Amino acid sequence: MFSTHPLAYAWANRARFVSELQEFVTFPSVSARRENAGDIGRCAEWLASHLREIGMQRVMVVPTRGHPIVYADWLGAPDRPTIIIYGHYDVQPADPLDQWQSPPFAGVVRGNHLYGRGASDDKGQMFAHLKALESCLRTSGRLPVNVKCLFEGEEEIGSPSFAPFLEQQRAGLEADVIVVSDSAMPSADRPAITYAMRGALSLELEVTGPESDLHDGVFGGIVNNPLKGLCDIVSGLHAKTGRIAIPGFYDRVYKVSQKERGFMASQGPTNAELMKNAHTNMCWGERGFTLYERTTIRPSLTVSGIAGGHQGAGPKSIIPSRALAKLNFRLVPDQDPAEIDALVRSHIARLTPFTLQSRTKTYVTARPVLIDRHHRFIRAAAAACQKAFRAAPVFVRSGGTNPAVAAFQHTLNIPIALIGFGLPDDQIHAPNERFHLPNLYKGIATSILLMHAVAHEPRRSLGPPASALTQRHEP
Amino acid sequence: MFSTHPLAYAWANRARFVSELQEFVTFPSVSARRENAGDIGRCAEWLASHLREIGMQRVMVVPTRGHPIVYADWLGAPDRPTIIIYGHYDVQPADPLDQWQSPPFAGVVRGNHLYGRGASDDKGQMFAHLKALESCLRTSGRLPVNVKCLFEGEEEIGSPSFAPFLEQQRAGLEADVIVVSDSAMPSADRPAITYAMRGALSLELEVTGPESDLHDGVFGGIVNNPLKGLCDIVSGLHAKTGRIAIPGFYDRVYKVSQKERGFMASQGPTNAELMKNAHTNMCWGERGFTLYERTTIRPSLTVSGIAGGHQGAGPKSIIPSRALAKLNFRLVPDQDPAEIDALVRSHIARLTPFTLQSRTKTYVTARPVLIDRHHRFIRAAAAACQKAFRAAPVFVRSGGTNPAVAAFQHTLNIPIALIGFGLPDDQIHAPNERFHLPNLYKGIATSILLMHAVAHEPRRSLGPPASALTQRHEP
Repeated sequence: MFSTHPLAYAWANRARFVSELQEFVTFPSVSARRENAGDIGRCAEWLASHLREIGMQRVMVVPTRGHPIVYADWLGAPDRPTIIIYGHYDVQPADPLDQWQSPPFAGVVRGNHLYGRGASDDKGQMFAHLKALESCLRTSGRLPVNVKCLFEGEEEIGSPSFAPFLEQQRAGLEADVIVVSDSAMPSADRPAITYAMRGALSLELEVTGPESDLHDGVFGGIVNNPLKGLCDIVSGLHAKTGRIAIPGFYDRVYKVSQKERGFMASQGPTNAELMKNAHTNMCWGERGFTLYERTTIRPSLTVSGIAGGHQGAGPKSIIPSRALAKLNFRLVPDQDPAEIDALVRSHIARLTPFTLQSRTKTYVTARPVLIDRHHRFIRAAAAACQKAFRAAPVFVRSGGTNPAVAAFQHTLNIPIALIGFGLPDDQIHAPNERFHLPNLYKGIATSILLMHAVAHEPRRSLGPPASALTQRHEP
Repeated sequence: MFSTHPLAYAWANRARFVSELQEFVTFPSVSARRENAGDIGRCAEWLASHLREIGMQRVMVVPTRGHPIVYADWLGAPDRPTIIIYGHYDVQPADPLDQWQSPPFAGVVRGNHLYGRGASDDKGQMFAHLKALESCLRTSGRLPVNVKCLFEGEEEIGSPSFAPFLEQQRAGLEADVIVVSDSAMPSADRPAITYAMRGALSLELEVTGPESDLHDGVFGGIVNNPLKGLCDIVSGLHAKTGRIAIPGFYDRVYKVSQKERGFMASQGPTNAELMKNAHTNMCWGERGFTLYERTTIRPSLTVSGIAGGHQGAGPKSIIPSRALAKLNFRLVPDQDPAEIDALVRSHIARLTPFTLQSRTKTYVTARPVLIDRHHRFIRAAAAACQKAFRAAPVFVRSGGTNPAVAAFQHTLNIPIALIGFGLPDDQIHAPNERFHLPNLYKGIATSILLMHAVAHEPRRSLGPPASALTQRHEP
């Protein structure tokens, strides 16, 4: 058995791998729902057993203030580089349940797809790496490199325990490169490596007025209305041009060079493609930038929810006593979430009339991520990807945010290979989420080839300190 | 028995009256809840039986497209004036149920109060008139005047069937004065007659954008957000001064004379009283007017509810596909709800960016009401009130709206005596609604004395046509 090539082993065992992934998907490991805390725990234990079974050396279920982190390592190649493999075993809530064609936690295979909550995000994608480890360990009894696995259970709720964990365990997490598969490729024959992600700042804004709801017949015209005040504030966050109107907001936004913008245009989606993905022909936003640029190298602000007053059918005669808005900022280098948070708070305070009170609560902060796409480990990852998919990956920037990836960059400061095995129509976060099964095998192959490609690079190729890294805007 | 004075009869029977009112309150005649349609029907039948029992001549339960109207008359005095008595037997929903000290439909008496949903609004107040009719009919076998009772079952849902009913039955509803007890007096020793009410226009504004919710990481910055658009529109409805910014909105607002404003100041609540009632010390609104004036002779706009996007705890990464706002306008003479509706719609259309769509739906329209407080029937009502309460009533304007009263004025165009027997702390529309029982007897007395006072006035004292009446701004 030790003579088989890991790729051949993976191919021969692909049917079993699918049925194991089905089992992984059956855990309703919904991190946002307290009711599922037990399921999260069982899923973590299942994952740990699986890692032990395939031959990883140390396997631990590490408790946190929230859901546990599953750690596993194999460190049998002291003169070789070390790879950290990151993934998350928690999933989004499955509702609305009535829109699923098969139960969200049944893990049903139909045609080329495995259907289920988490099938693509992120159980299917992380499972490819697990099966790559198994394929190496079962064929040669060892791995080509040292590997440390970090599988967390809180990605879908903003990874609150992950950055503290990295800070605490920093010494034990020395490595040369991090591999993360938790994103999508543009299409099944076009792999992608992500080299930038926007940061995030999520706030809740609460505006309060009278002690309790008042009758608008009796008091309409003499008491200021928190909902009106909220609308004035939200409206005052944008200028008519589509730019964000918060003083100082753009001060640290790095002006990307024409050369890099040219590279982006050669790799990224066109305006037409982005509009098609949004199912609209009405584009909007900041002039002077392509749509791809607006979603990646420019910051944005989205009001993702507002609630206040009467929500039911028909009218109601009230001046509501409070109103709430959820604000999501997406940030770019060199914006600092803490600094933006302060600017937003003081602008909101300026926009709040003295007849009302406003208050903000910060939920999520994550720094933008920028990875040197010329780094030799990233180039090695690209080569592995190209072999596995028989197509060169595009290098793209993402408009989204991954707090765990941001934590990796700003804590460990080593290159991160963001290789997504998901597809744009995987319906992640939506009913009928699915994973394109041919990508399971191609993902395994990418991971095996990546480990081999990295194996003979000199280890300990640590990058410059974090502060310097964020200055390297043109990777 | 025929020799007893009706006031003495009422006094002697006051305990029985209370127990009958308790029975009336036990019907959960909630017009807004479909589940209570049967209870509404049973309550109407109970009311009709009661009217027959006390000696009214014709009693009918008139079906409408919604809940029935209970009609009863006594027309045995052809040379005397005719009074219409209006009330409503439907009630607001009782929730939140857990805040009631006794069940909302138990009709429990504690101390001087009868507790229950509808005890004050409007079952207790209308019951005073019923018992006045009984007191006259049982003591003299007749009434001092002709009486037509109209008790509707849809007041709490905006009286949708009432104006059509009045239009259809106009010929049969000839009368000299209308008496309505469905409001509050400032305090137990200070009766009030309302001579003006604001009109109303209630709209729902819907703003839509992308077909479905989009990920704000992927699309933030390139797709306009319906919630942001909604905030811009709502914000654009008011000027910074607190005035409504809709072009043409104030064109027909009648400028009330200094003389009338002086009268208002002598009768109505002070700024301090209004602020105390609102439990706030932060007043707001249009400069140049007292708070009482702002709520009565000036129009207002209240956003009573907004809903859109994520309503739950924590953040969510979406650009929502739609947003809703509820808008309540309160209107004053000579604003016409239909005309204002058109102005609002075209202003909203102007404020809607071409990257979003907006749509409005009109729920309620009611014209403002203005009653000649010098009319001899209104003076007669005031005299009756003064005798019953041993205090002269104040003449006040109300900031609220009663679509049924508006329909009366604009269909029948005869004076309307709005005499409230409720108190400000009756908790109408709230848990632990109650009726101050001493007002039951004083209400009966007012009604008996009013019928006698009106009896010898010449009948058929029809006012000028409706169009002219609304021009008489200085009653």
